[in-house]
Amino acid sequence: MSPIMSPSIQSLYPEDFAHCYGCGRLNPRGLHIETRWEEDEAVTRFVPRPHDVAVPGFVYGGLIASLIDCHAMATAAGAAERAAGRALGAGPAPRFVTAALEVHFLHPTPLGPELEIRARVRSQSERKAVVEATLTVDGRLTARARVVAVRLPATMTSGD
Amino acid sequence: MSPIMSPSIQSLYPEDFAHCYGCGRLNPRGLHIETRWEEDEAVTRFVPRPHDVAVPGFVYGGLIASLIDCHAMATAAGAAERAAGRALGAGPAPRFVTAALEVHFLHPTPLGPELEIRARVRSQSERKAVVEATLTVDGRLTARARVVAVRLPATMTSGD
Repeated sequence: MSPIMSPSIQSLYPEDFAHCYGCGRLNPRGLHIETRWEEDEAVTRFVPRPHDVAVPGFVYGGLIASLIDCHAMATAAGAAERAAGRALGAGPAPRFVTAALEVHFLHPTPLGPELEIRARVRSQSERKAVVEATLTVDGRLTARARVVAVRLPATMTSGD
Repeated sequence: MSPIMSPSIQSLYPEDFAHCYGCGRLNPRGLHIETRWEEDEAVTRFVPRPHDVAVPGFVYGGLIASLIDCHAMATAAGAAERAAGRALGAGPAPRFVTAALEVHFLHPTPLGPELEIRARVRSQSERKAVVEATLTVDGRLTARARVVAVRLPATMTSGD
């Protein structure tokens, strides 16, 4: 299956967990980020809208943090499936949530071109994964991130 | 001047730098975060909308990162004015941008009540400030953050 045709990890989240503003397919106002595996990295691409601005000409850092956050959770989910020996799409993907998010903005990110975020799992246990990610625009690295993902705790599985 | 009547720091940004998605008064689709000084802390409050969801019942981490990001930049700007001996509102506020953003999500943040973010500058130079922030909901601490703010570089003062 080619990378383009492979299902996004977010498309495999159970319906109850598919409302996220950043990546939920069921959030009508959300960003609808999609993460796919390309060889040994998880990749997402996003074209910021004109209102995703920080100062004129540059992408809002909060958007960058949001994209990285959701993408890292999907990376952790995909890696957990791989580690368990399951093919992506063979069942629902596990849902991870963010314990810590650290983003280093190395250079201003120009607003206009597509952003590409690539992520890898650096360490992994049954409960937790550490994900590192890079953001590039037109091949130039503008941000680096480290994200700690944990399995969705039982306290988050009911609505309040 | 009471805290309620004091100008928000964002209202003092020059027009050229008032388009930010998180806090720009001139961004019609933005969050319009406002930071005010209350005694020795900078405070912002925000009521998430229903679509600012992570998993049902809880606030999207990307929104939390975004609020903290803009609030920390305004905190740095306000502190820089104070350090220079200028009263807030006596002139335009300086514009800082984010060099690093680190958010620790200590507990899930319930979606519904107003969020309160309080920030202090921990260290400060002419060019840079380190800001620490806490997020509480109904008095309960749910996230902590550390943000490095730097003066807007000359490379970001034109649109491309």
